[in-house]
Amino acid sequence: MAKKVLVSGGAGFIGSHIVDRLVRRNDMETLVIVDNFWTGLRENLAHVTDPRVHLVQADVETFATAEKFDEIIHLASPASPPWYMREPARTIKANLVGALNLVEMLNPGGRISFASTSEVYGDPLISPQPESYRGQVDCTGPRSSYDESKRCTESLLFELHRTAGIDIRIVRLFNVYGTRTRPDDGRAVSNFLSQALTTGELTIYGDGLQSRSWGYVDDIVSALERYFWLDNVDYCGPLNVGNDREIPVIDVARHIVSLVPGARLKLCPPIPQDPTNRRPDLTLCRKVLPGWEANITYEEGVRRTLEWFREAVVLKGAQTDAPSPVRLES
Amino acid sequence: MAKKVLVSGGAGFIGSHIVDRLVRRNDMETLVIVDNFWTGLRENLAHVTDPRVHLVQADVETFATAEKFDEIIHLASPASPPWYMREPARTIKANLVGALNLVEMLNPGGRISFASTSEVYGDPLISPQPESYRGQVDCTGPRSSYDESKRCTESLLFELHRTAGIDIRIVRLFNVYGTRTRPDDGRAVSNFLSQALTTGELTIYGDGLQSRSWGYVDDIVSALERYFWLDNVDYCGPLNVGNDREIPVIDVARHIVSLVPGARLKLCPPIPQDPTNRRPDLTLCRKVLPGWEANITYEEGVRRTLEWFREAVVLKGAQTDAPSPVRLES
Repeated sequence: MAKKVLVSGGAGFIGSHIVDRLVRRNDMETLVIVDNFWTGLRENLAHVTDPRVHLVQADVETFATAEKFDEIIHLASPASPPWYMREPARTIKANLVGALNLVEMLNPGGRISFASTSEVYGDPLISPQPESYRGQVDCTGPRSSYDESKRCTESLLFELHRTAGIDIRIVRLFNVYGTRTRPDDGRAVSNFLSQALTTGELTIYGDGLQSRSWGYVDDIVSALERYFWLDNVDYCGPLNVGNDREIPVIDVARHIVSLVPGARLKLCPPIPQDPTNRRPDLTLCRKVLPGWEANITYEEGVRRTLEWFREAVVLKGAQTDAPSPVRLES
Repeated sequence: MAKKVLVSGGAGFIGSHIVDRLVRRNDMETLVIVDNFWTGLRENLAHVTDPRVHLVQADVETFATAEKFDEIIHLASPASPPWYMREPARTIKANLVGALNLVEMLNPGGRISFASTSEVYGDPLISPQPESYRGQVDCTGPRSSYDESKRCTESLLFELHRTAGIDIRIVRLFNVYGTRTRPDDGRAVSNFLSQALTTGELTIYGDGLQSRSWGYVDDIVSALERYFWLDNVDYCGPLNVGNDREIPVIDVARHIVSLVPGARLKLCPPIPQDPTNRRPDLTLCRKVLPGWEANITYEEGVRRTLEWFREAVVLKGAQTDAPSPVRLES
């Protein structure tokens, strides 16, 4: 049966890559993309010409339609601290009120997939973090709108699964980087790359020894594609997805400095409540998605991203209002 | 200046006691009570005849008015596991979407006070729990709709305080019991009392050694009254409020058995994810509200509650639809 699919946040960094995978499907009748272009960019979908795709500019929490969907993939949310810390209430609305709105649009037997985050673990006291770890989030802190709205949206979906039998898929994404990150995204890799290509000064917050597990977007989206619709999996989540090679922020910066002539490090004061470490325990992921691995090394991922940034940042500039060939509705 | 005050959940167990304190105020012009009678009872306000009080039957998340308020006290939420586990999405809406709705009704410089919960600590690994403890909540578990929506509402309010300067007061209430608990509330003390007076069988889940810190409602509401409007406090929370005398559930049951002839214990299987212990660290509370103590012993509190239950449960039966002398709007 031909499926009706909805993706919220489909013009975003990860969302647009998900759209690229979705349009490969033969079993899909329509794909509705809902995005308000808060952090998403129209140009991320500029290459999409599939006539099944309909792009709607709307906030996910107030988006209304008479249609129902067989599969909903809820990605709408800023993911970078400077963005969600500026507009915390809006972040909570996108995640949680968005999910409350979307579940009403599911066809009977339909599935909702949700991109949660490793931020549900807060500043973890154990490493690597398995899905059973309950986390260490300060629910009164400056990062809490993101962390807590992801946690509460997980709760909503697991509880709707338990009480109403709704089919769900919940992933917890660890750090992702790659092409189509906004130059002004504010997270480490994209920051370093756009800084290397513009001012030349790569800003390190604190001692730079805080570590992250950098997952290249193609690897991560391959896991999502399998988990959200390709594989026949009997597990609704939560599922850690990421690269488990843990690298200090300063090492990534030094690597980029070595690639871009004239680039150099600039040390800045630490960011409040910046997690000191983050690394996925992928035991469950390897069982649920056998054969999947984050194979792209960070050296290779950084190379590809740098190439893309050279074109996007330096050659094209910020074409955030470029016209899109996909149909724009309401 | 005469204040316009709104209380959500004002027909509930704690809410109706808050209303009793509010109507003592001389500086209050109007008091709007919003309650949908999900767990609140009209009869809890049957004695309130103050003409300044307006009772509106509405869901807090969709309640609409052109009025603005100087003080909003957000208490709307079920607080007993069987109630919120049956309707998790509705619980999340009451707490979080309710708060999102209410903050839009604040006058400039207005204050919103919120009853959060010791459940934000989950099944704590330290005892007693100070406000700085980040908790151990399973955000995918059967109690999560309550725990996580309280956490996320805290986040929303602290973030609105940080980014928009909104005046907030956040308390984390530990176990509260007393008069005007629903006979079918489902939490330990009220369960034991209504069971003692009806079937005679007091149900103990698991070994009964899980401990709680039982705060009698008059004590707790005295702290809220001081913190929400009486005292001139320069601290927006979170503030633990409770009784720090920790007592195993089975001891309370045995005490009630000793008071009611014919009553006896009945052992039942444990409830999933029932916290093993819960005890407030009141260091901060004693500093912020000097002189306040939960003085009413549990023996005295149980005596008063038993007396009330005798009248409410045995003599009157469940008069949940008793007419109310306060004005009922829309």
